Amino acid sequence: MAVLLSTKAHTMQDWKAALLAVDPALDVRLFPDVGDIAEIEAAVVWTAHDMMELRRYPNLRVIVSMGAGVDHLFRPPGPPPGVPVARLLDMRLTQGMTEWVLLNVLRFHRQDPEYRDQQARKVWHELPAPETSARRIGMLGLGELGADATRALMALGFPVMGWSRRPKTMAGVETFHGQDGLMAMAARSDMLVCLLPLTPETRGVIDARLLGAMKPGGYLLNSARGGHMVGADVLAALDSGHLAGAALDVFEPEPLPADSAFWTHPKVILTPHAASITIPSSAAPQVVENIHRARAGQALINLVDFSAGY
Amino acid sequence: MAVLLSTKAHTMQDWKAALLAVDPALDVRLFPDVGDIAEIEAAVVWTAHDMMELRRYPNLRVIVSMGAGVDHLFRPPGPPPGVPVARLLDMRLTQGMTEWVLLNVLRFHRQDPEYRDQQARKVWHELPAPETSARRIGMLGLGELGADATRALMALGFPVMGWSRRPKTMAGVETFHGQDGLMAMAARSDMLVCLLPLTPETRGVIDARLLGAMKPGGYLLNSARGGHMVGADVLAALDSGHLAGAALDVFEPEPLPADSAFWTHPKVILTPHAASITIPSSAAPQVVENIHRARAGQALINLVDFSAGY
Repeated sequence: MAVLLSTKAHTMQDWKAALLAVDPALDVRLFPDVGDIAEIEAAVVWTAHDMMELRRYPNLRVIVSMGAGVDHLFRPPGPPPGVPVARLLDMRLTQGMTEWVLLNVLRFHRQDPEYRDQQARKVWHELPAPETSARRIGMLGLGELGADATRALMALGFPVMGWSRRPKTMAGVETFHGQDGLMAMAARSDMLVCLLPLTPETRGVIDARLLGAMKPGGYLLNSARGGHMVGADVLAALDSGHLAGAALDVFEPEPLPADSAFWTHPKVILTPHAASITIPSSAAPQVVENIHRARAGQALINLVDFSAGY
Repeated sequence: MAVLLSTKAHTMQDWKAALLAVDPALDVRLFPDVGDIAEIEAAVVWTAHDMMELRRYPNLRVIVSMGAGVDHLFRPPGPPPGVPVARLLDMRLTQGMTEWVLLNVLRFHRQDPEYRDQQARKVWHELPAPETSARRIGMLGLGELGADATRALMALGFPVMGWSRRPKTMAGVETFHGQDGLMAMAARSDMLVCLLPLTPETRGVIDARLLGAMKPGGYLLNSARGGHMVGADVLAALDSGHLAGAALDVFEPEPLPADSAFWTHPKVILTPHAASITIPSSAAPQVVENIHRARAGQALINLVDFSAGY
């Protein structure tokens, strides 16, 4: 069967090799060299691929997103009607995201920006020791990514609370849901970490109201999607000193324009949507499994729920 | 019984309060206001205290070091003969050290210096993703601190090897010992982390020979003691590019002089002996327990082994 592969040009060959390593019989076509469109049964695509273009393939049975987030597939016009969409929930992808969260939680917790500044000024001065058990983390999102980061933070002794749109429970975690729960959790959070899916309900969730509910001197981490933040509100909270710092991996639009204030803000730690990167060799088995399942008419792994939007 | 307390001036009152919270009957004397020297039965001291001064107390039964390292007590003339010395092995102290190690391993692993540089130049560019399972950490020291950091790194998926002066085993860790073992481990390490006690045998262990045994492009982390490093050798390895970076918390002497090249080296992340700080309220129960044990003639907790030097 023929598989359409469409992602960033420099990773295309890695992905093709990884898929063929799992199933050498696959006929992988690199977009835009698709050959006979009637032969394409599966599309493995990343954010830039045009959803209208996918409607050209009459025999498409499955679309696989090359990441955990699928908001890009739901932008109008959305995926071709009737074609199931699967997303990647890859252990390596989750691990990378948890590393990014730990790095930035520890950076702020351990006063690293202050120590970088002291080093630049040749100041030898020990700052008051932070208490890990008193640094409360509010996790926005308790899905695969949020739950994994929560477990890692709890293992280090941080108290973690979690918010999700619908009620959830997790051992050792105080959980919140809904709008009231969101504000209640923010009011008790020293750091907010966003790992939510981007849906119409979560778009703009990080706004002046949420940040204003936090205690002064808190920190914001966002490695989910730029659309979760109202950028002007985050910058205002940083400028006023209400937020002491922010680690941001995602923006709208991306790449972040050169004139954005996020680039140069002294309290912003910026990474270029690099918190976690799908590694083809790690993800390929799951992608190939879904291609086989779609062909055999079986239920997909990590099927996207269109009604929930993720 | 009277307890002599001698530490940094700004933490003296916190320590006194913490000790009295555990045992309100203690008679805590803040150095140099010691009162009748014959009444002093225990000395709770940090690095700056003069060991000759401690010989003045005729009824001293125990010395408690306010940290995990006790090399300062062993500098000539050493502690008063016949008085047992205990060190602190405090969970909170260990936790702080592990946080410092994780922060700096993740900083280098996740190419944070490169991303900080890209942000300063407004460059939006995703670097090739690092593989956690391929980043081998060589841990120098498998005592309380080294073992805890090892467990935390392994939980994140890093392969960790461990070296100690005498043979040791640890589940899931490839262990090495002796001079041959040291070079063999360094040759396979992408990062070396030093958490050794400072003894005559480990002084200067991080020298040109050890660094030269590492693969090019490696990283060094030292939060043990400045005396473990030959400073000029570390700087030379950074200048030549053989070391890609170093996170250093300890130096000789401290405070680090303003003309030291470590302050301004672009590949050095410097903290002012702040990797882990003993928190009085966390450590006090152990200190008081040892004071009681010494008075009752019982074996001390975390008694220092004079022959091993730690």
